[in-house]
Amino acid sequence: MSIRIGIYGYGNLGRGVECAVHQNPDMELVAVFTRRAPESVRILTEGVPVLHADDVLSMKDKIDVMILCGGSATDLPVQTPALAKHFNVIDSFDTHANIPAHFERVNDAASASGKTAIISVGWDPGMFSLNRLYAQSILAEGETYTFWGRGVSQGHSDAIRRIEGVLDAKQYTVPVPEALSAVRNGENPTLTTREKHTRECFVVAEEGADLARIEREIKTMPNYFADYDTTVHFISMDELREKHGGIPHGGCVIRSGKTGIAKEHRHVIEYSLKLDSNPEFTASVLTAYARAAYRLHNEGAVGCKTVLDVPPAYLSPKSAEALRKELL
Amino acid sequence: MSIRIGIYGYGNLGRGVECAVHQNPDMELVAVFTRRAPESVRILTEGVPVLHADDVLSMKDKIDVMILCGGSATDLPVQTPALAKHFNVIDSFDTHANIPAHFERVNDAASASGKTAIISVGWDPGMFSLNRLYAQSILAEGETYTFWGRGVSQGHSDAIRRIEGVLDAKQYTVPVPEALSAVRNGENPTLTTREKHTRECFVVAEEGADLARIEREIKTMPNYFADYDTTVHFISMDELREKHGGIPHGGCVIRSGKTGIAKEHRHVIEYSLKLDSNPEFTASVLTAYARAAYRLHNEGAVGCKTVLDVPPAYLSPKSAEALRKELL
Repeated sequence: MSIRIGIYGYGNLGRGVECAVHQNPDMELVAVFTRRAPESVRILTEGVPVLHADDVLSMKDKIDVMILCGGSATDLPVQTPALAKHFNVIDSFDTHANIPAHFERVNDAASASGKTAIISVGWDPGMFSLNRLYAQSILAEGETYTFWGRGVSQGHSDAIRRIEGVLDAKQYTVPVPEALSAVRNGENPTLTTREKHTRECFVVAEEGADLARIEREIKTMPNYFADYDTTVHFISMDELREKHGGIPHGGCVIRSGKTGIAKEHRHVIEYSLKLDSNPEFTASVLTAYARAAYRLHNEGAVGCKTVLDVPPAYLSPKSAEALRKELL
Repeated sequence: MSIRIGIYGYGNLGRGVECAVHQNPDMELVAVFTRRAPESVRILTEGVPVLHADDVLSMKDKIDVMILCGGSATDLPVQTPALAKHFNVIDSFDTHANIPAHFERVNDAASASGKTAIISVGWDPGMFSLNRLYAQSILAEGETYTFWGRGVSQGHSDAIRRIEGVLDAKQYTVPVPEALSAVRNGENPTLTTREKHTRECFVVAEEGADLARIEREIKTMPNYFADYDTTVHFISMDELREKHGGIPHGGCVIRSGKTGIAKEHRHVIEYSLKLDSNPEFTASVLTAYARAAYRLHNEGAVGCKTVLDVPPAYLSPKSAEALRKELL
């Protein structure tokens, strides 16, 4: 029997989950939920209903796992606990500082309803967190570094778009090559924010806008840009669409540590991602963890989990025997 | 209370475990077991007894986890099931083809005794297996590649040493740079054995030995060298000791796959290791999984597991709350 998947929220991430479900023969998409008028939403899968978010409880017994595809700022803090009262749920909540509070809310809801939830699934938080954990546990003495990019930061792109005179913008986060190679060489450098990443901005300005002011406002924006070396390129709308239409991302987690009685041996562990589509990759991780949630729930696991709690084998459609034989 | 560790077998790997235990404040080494005369074995830790392997049962109630540090060819197939009758055990059994049979034997023993065993812990099998599993589960459509090296293969070095006229030898397994970069570019090439790795041999021959014959015997040796492009360098014993005294290794697992409704987006996941000391790194992985075995056992988990079954959080000395807050 297939794992029956629901998608709650149908933007880039929701579409990514829909595509990922197609790639996993043990899963079946049974409904997409939206806050828009359902008849206005066209999905990629024929024969699957698009329902209004308000009608979600009508599908309570027809969905094994609900994958939440809303945003972390305002959607998920409300939606994940609310839906965990009725469904097994997966989300990609990625506001690192608020994960403990989100965990508690979702855990309370899922524990009370007897459902299984896995939160903060994706690549960071998610696969990068896992790799920080494995690497730190193995190399007890050492330093862990996370680099992001080269890739598009949606939050930083949005921040530029809010500046007066800006029509559109795309911001790339870029690791500093010298920092990256020092870390890969096992030098364990101490790096400031500025030394780790630069920010590259492609901006379409209104005709006649004060470009010097826009550039200054970007470069001095607190939290977003002030602590970084930032480059601003003004380009045309055509060029933005043509050359900067994608949502690539990636990055790496590197741990460098020493072993031996005199710490005489150095080891470097690196996990890296090069992603053409950030939302589709995140969606693929969510979908694999939906399988894990389904299995955990069938075994009686109740409450909230994170990627750190889930046995790796639960992600795979293969049996434990097959995994030991083919892959271990 | 510390996790009380026993080391069974005291070669390079056993010494590596001893060093790793020093780096983990929640662990304590309580005994080292050897088949040699115990008084002839000097260990690095003061005050810890070296006991004969025959006396292992005298420590039955004083050891939480026994880490087995013997070889996969003849030691572990016998020792792990035998010790799992009395102890929680960890081993690094690495003969891939025999893992299912070894698993069954250890599982039978541990299930009967109510103990917890984790087998085939290390980097391959081990961390590489985990990464194959995670990457395949996330990118359902794609190809997985494992490259080993540049590093010393003990088995291939031994095979050369058995040739007549050879005094000593060191063999390096080396990934072919062109293959590696095609895989990293997401080209999903089909690669033969010869196209993936080359073998580089540093050989010390007896004075007057027939070097051409030795080189021919190496290059045509079935299984070990015949399917590879092999380079043989004859060097002096001094040079071998000076330049090839270490046991470095490493390698990478790369999965490249596509997502999107028309498979229009490519993603590359890479996990790589650069290790100054193969046995000390393997020992560090074993030690982290000893912590997991201890916890699993305390929770009532009985029988044999592999790295694929163990929730990542069990490897860390930190609490689940701390991990969510600091690392997720």
